[in-house]
Amino acid sequence: MKMLINVAETVVADALRGMAAAHPALSVDVENRVVVRRDAPVAGKVALVSGGGSGHEPLHGGFVGPGMLSAACPGEVFTSPVPDQMVRAAAAVDSGSGVLFIVKNYTGDVLNFDMAAELAEDEGIQVAKVLVNDDVAVTDSLFTAGRRGTGATLFVEKIAGAAADAGMPLERVESIGRQVNAASRSFGVALTAVSTPAKGSPTFDLPEGELELGIGIHGEPGRERRAMMTSREIADFAVGAVLDDLEPRGPVIALVNGMGGTPLLELYGFNAEVQRVLEERGVSVARTLVGNYVTSLDMAGCSVTLCVVDEDLLALWDAPVATPALRWGR
Amino acid sequence: MKMLINVAETVVADALRGMAAAHPALSVDVENRVVVRRDAPVAGKVALVSGGGSGHEPLHGGFVGPGMLSAACPGEVFTSPVPDQMVRAAAAVDSGSGVLFIVKNYTGDVLNFDMAAELAEDEGIQVAKVLVNDDVAVTDSLFTAGRRGTGATLFVEKIAGAAADAGMPLERVESIGRQVNAASRSFGVALTAVSTPAKGSPTFDLPEGELELGIGIHGEPGRERRAMMTSREIADFAVGAVLDDLEPRGPVIALVNGMGGTPLLELYGFNAEVQRVLEERGVSVARTLVGNYVTSLDMAGCSVTLCVVDEDLLALWDAPVATPALRWGR
Repeated sequence: MKMLINVAETVVADALRGMAAAHPALSVDVENRVVVRRDAPVAGKVALVSGGGSGHEPLHGGFVGPGMLSAACPGEVFTSPVPDQMVRAAAAVDSGSGVLFIVKNYTGDVLNFDMAAELAEDEGIQVAKVLVNDDVAVTDSLFTAGRRGTGATLFVEKIAGAAADAGMPLERVESIGRQVNAASRSFGVALTAVSTPAKGSPTFDLPEGELELGIGIHGEPGRERRAMMTSREIADFAVGAVLDDLEPRGPVIALVNGMGGTPLLELYGFNAEVQRVLEERGVSVARTLVGNYVTSLDMAGCSVTLCVVDEDLLALWDAPVATPALRWGR
Repeated sequence: MKMLINVAETVVADALRGMAAAHPALSVDVENRVVVRRDAPVAGKVALVSGGGSGHEPLHGGFVGPGMLSAACPGEVFTSPVPDQMVRAAAAVDSGSGVLFIVKNYTGDVLNFDMAAELAEDEGIQVAKVLVNDDVAVTDSLFTAGRRGTGATLFVEKIAGAAADAGMPLERVESIGRQVNAASRSFGVALTAVSTPAKGSPTFDLPEGELELGIGIHGEPGRERRAMMTSREIADFAVGAVLDDLEPRGPVIALVNGMGGTPLLELYGFNAEVQRVLEERGVSVARTLVGNYVTSLDMAGCSVTLCVVDEDLLALWDAPVATPALRWGR
């Protein structure tokens, strides 16, 4: 599998150097692998720190900026960052108002963020945590006890970020983050397998003519394999799986997410089918976001995430955000 | 090649339906294939219309909105839109201040926009045109007399869009568009071949272990094939090809563009190498944009576009823009 890289060993460091050059509003510590908004710490504001394995870009570094994350800690590809990165990030962004860790539910990430929280508290930083576990595909997984954290991470980071921007205290920002996670569900589909730089070839075998329903963002096995389906059939299955679990009683925000290798033309067409299913099921859609946001390197495929919102959550979603990958409002 | 579609025949219409659902600020005429900003025509403002074959998303529909295009006309995949679309778009957005057509240099697009300009003028709409022909890879090409139009289209649409927003008259917006094109050069590289929905498989053969230097955005042949190169070597070659032709005497805006199938992690790493070459060659970089902006469906690869700017052009680049794919400022 051909890749636009030098050597596998420097992929993350190279990307961080390129990110630093592209985004002067970010302060990128390439050696220690911490991406911080340059104006941090912001006085009186709760700080948000997230992170995880690399290979899911723009998650998380692309979501650092006013209205969203204060800092991100990128690990090696598909590998949790280490506690030292997280403590460093927390120390860099804490204004004294505390730090919220947003953690995708993978065993390594959970352990390392737990350890980092203890270390940060030893340094006098108040830390709260939100665990993201929105993926309804499987109960336990290759790297997970419980459900995996996927697309809802974007919702938690955006909405909790807006709550922090609005001056809410740590416990309130934390509870909003938990509320968003509890109101969100995801389901992903792979048309091709992902190739990591370290392996240099697909990490699993997904034959021409088949797709995998319920895939994880590291290529972890899903619910089942089937003969290739149409966009319409995939939307029926994926949205159906989400709605069977979520049973929304209010409007939703929909994330129609590309896994990395699927063209935007196809994603928009898939969104039309997602919207059709939601309409058929009587679900009102307040906002829709279509694009590559929580990816799995070059994997072709998509995921659907729905988050049920009330007026308050929707106002926080609509609040201004200014990050490399998500930007609107003022 | 597996695709997230229903059938090839409805790919463009399906995508337009999905786009309409995602972007309420756009008015999408699915039947006639015209994407218009909902608040058009804007009184006293020159309107900008572009378009071209589909398969390059977010170009052009993703660049419709305040500060950039007034309307876009998507053709079938890799096929020029027809004059009727362009006239319809011009009529929808013209405020009486005239319309600028921004045309990528491909034979079909040029002929159809020329015919549309005549038809629109017959209807009393004042039309000017800017031809984009920035690709230094080859002189003539499969679909082109003269150089192909690629990444500079984004620069022309953004900067001329800001000029129109600033209230400049048609002839001034046109001359700024021409100035931006004249100051821009691009070079693209493919690691894999593109697959179109109609063909359902790669449109050309690019073996494992080789890449194509100077590729077009429809998979048109480039300058040469070589054994696979590192990111560093590709940046040396691509930026070198651009600089040999451009010889910038001022700062540049750099677009480090993904062709669609290359992960953002790799693109950022490639950007680090692009910045290194520019520094080595003494070129000052005023702004950098990294991402999938002018794509070729699922093709893996990248392109580099540089645009030499003075203070006026840079101020227009920095002016607010609010489109689905490009958004900053207020």
